[in-house]
Amino acid sequence: MIIIGEKINATRKSIAEAISARDEGHIIATAREQVAAGADYIDLNGGDPNPETEVANMEWLVKLVQDNVDVPICLDSSNVKAIEAGLALASSKPIVNSVTLEPERLESFLPVLSEHECMVVGLCISDEGMPRGVDDRLERSVRLIEQLRGIGKKMDEIIIDPAFLPASAEPDSGKVVCQAIAKIREKFPEVHIGGGLSNVSFGLPKRKYINLAMVSMAIYSGMDAAIIDPCTPYMVPMILAAEAVCGTDQWCANYISAYRDGRLG
Amino acid sequence: MIIIGEKINATRKSIAEAISARDEGHIIATAREQVAAGADYIDLNGGDPNPETEVANMEWLVKLVQDNVDVPICLDSSNVKAIEAGLALASSKPIVNSVTLEPERLESFLPVLSEHECMVVGLCISDEGMPRGVDDRLERSVRLIEQLRGIGKKMDEIIIDPAFLPASAEPDSGKVVCQAIAKIREKFPEVHIGGGLSNVSFGLPKRKYINLAMVSMAIYSGMDAAIIDPCTPYMVPMILAAEAVCGTDQWCANYISAYRDGRLG
Repeated sequence: MIIIGEKINATRKSIAEAISARDEGHIIATAREQVAAGADYIDLNGGDPNPETEVANMEWLVKLVQDNVDVPICLDSSNVKAIEAGLALASSKPIVNSVTLEPERLESFLPVLSEHECMVVGLCISDEGMPRGVDDRLERSVRLIEQLRGIGKKMDEIIIDPAFLPASAEPDSGKVVCQAIAKIREKFPEVHIGGGLSNVSFGLPKRKYINLAMVSMAIYSGMDAAIIDPCTPYMVPMILAAEAVCGTDQWCANYISAYRDGRLG
Repeated sequence: MIIIGEKINATRKSIAEAISARDEGHIIATAREQVAAGADYIDLNGGDPNPETEVANMEWLVKLVQDNVDVPICLDSSNVKAIEAGLALASSKPIVNSVTLEPERLESFLPVLSEHECMVVGLCISDEGMPRGVDDRLERSVRLIEQLRGIGKKMDEIIIDPAFLPASAEPDSGKVVCQAIAKIREKFPEVHIGGGLSNVSFGLPKRKYINLAMVSMAIYSGMDAAIIDPCTPYMVPMILAAEAVCGTDQWCANYISAYRDGRLG
C-alpha cells in the first residue's frame, strides 16, 4: 500500500496561511507528523489564484519538505508550471498528482511527465466531467493507461484514481467506485489504483467513520494507494488490518510486524 | 442491519463467573451497555460442561435479561434443551443461534424450531466440518435454506452464517468469506446474512482493527446481520458508515439521523 499524506494542501486554511507567511515550522511539523503516522509520500499542494505564486509556493514547499523528512513527495497541482518546477527540484522519484483526460491538461502534462522519472496519478476526469458508473471508469482508465504507457511510463508507475464522489450526492457512490476498482484491478493487475477517497465523506458528519469504512472496502476491491490523512485515529492501523484480512498481506506478516514496532497504537 | 450483542457468553471468564454466582448486576449491566451502544438483540450463551446446568443457566439468563432490557434475545447454544427452554420463556420473537448441517444437530433442532416463532441462524458447518472456499459456502447455504424453508421459516427469518475463519490461519479467509457473502446475497436477496465475524481476528493482536475492517468489507459484500461487541469503539458508527457508503442506507439518512441522536459518539 502506498500511503500519500494529504495534509499539506492550500485548500486547508492553516496551510494556506503558513505557505503565504512562509512559516517553515508549521509545514515541517505537518510533514513530520504524517511520516510518523505512516505516510510513504507527502502530498504538496500550494494552490493559489495567481499561477506564478503557485509555482513559487511549490518550489518553497518541495525544498522545505525534502530538507526535513526522508520520504519522497507527491506534487499536487493542475498547473503544469508548478509540476515542472517541483519535478526539477525533486531529489527522489516523486508522484505527480494528477493528469486527467481533459485535452488541455493531457497535452500540457504529457511532455513534462515524459521528461522526468516520476510516478503519475491518472484521474478519471475527461472533458465530459466526472465519470458515471463502473464501466465509464474502466473505459477512462484504459485511455489514461494508454496515454501514460505511450510516453514510456511503466505499469507500476501509474496510479489510476477512479474518482471518489461524495456519498451524500449519489446514494451508492462508494459501492460504484469499489466495483470500478475491482474491474480495473482485474484488467490491470500491475497498475496501482487509488486516490483521494476522503471525497466520499464530503458533506457528511463525523467524516472519519465514512473514510475508514471506505478505505476498508476499497482495499478489499483492489485499491493499493490512498491519498489520506494518516494522522486520523485508526486510519493506518485499519489500512494494515484490511490488507491482513484480504490476504494482500500474506499470513498477516506486515500487520503483526507493525504491532511489534508499536505502529498499531 | 441486525446487530446482535455478543458479550453475554460463558466462554468469557467474567460472564461464566457471573452466571455461576447468579450475579444479576453484572449480567444486567452487560446487557444494558450493549443496548445503549446499539444492539438490536442480546445474545445469551450459558454454556456449561453439564447439559442440565446449561438449561438452568439459559432460563436464568432469559428471564433476567428480558426483565431488564427492551430488546429481544438471541438464544446461543448447541444444546437443544437449552434452546427449547429459552424459546418457552421468550417474550418476543427471538433468534436461535444456531442450527448447522451436522445431521444430529439438524434433526434435534428442526422440530423445536418448527414449533416456535423465531428467527434462526443457519451456520455453514456440516459433518465434513468447516466450509472451504466460496462455492462450498454457497452450496451449504442452499441446503440450510431448504431445510429451514421446509419447516415453514420465511426467508427473512433465516440468517445464513457463512462461517468466519481466522485470518491468521488462512491467508485470504476474510476475502473468501466476503466473496461467499456476495454470492449468497445474489442468489437469495431476501435472506439475512451474517454471524460471528470476530472469529476473523482470532489469534491476532489489536483485534479491534481487524474486526472493523472485516465488518466494512462484509457489509459491502451484502452482510446485514452481525454478532459483534457493539461496545467496541468505532464499531456501531462504522457499521452505519459502511451502510451509508454502500447505498444500503439511501442518501445516508440513517447515518445522519444517528449523528443527530448522538449515536456516532
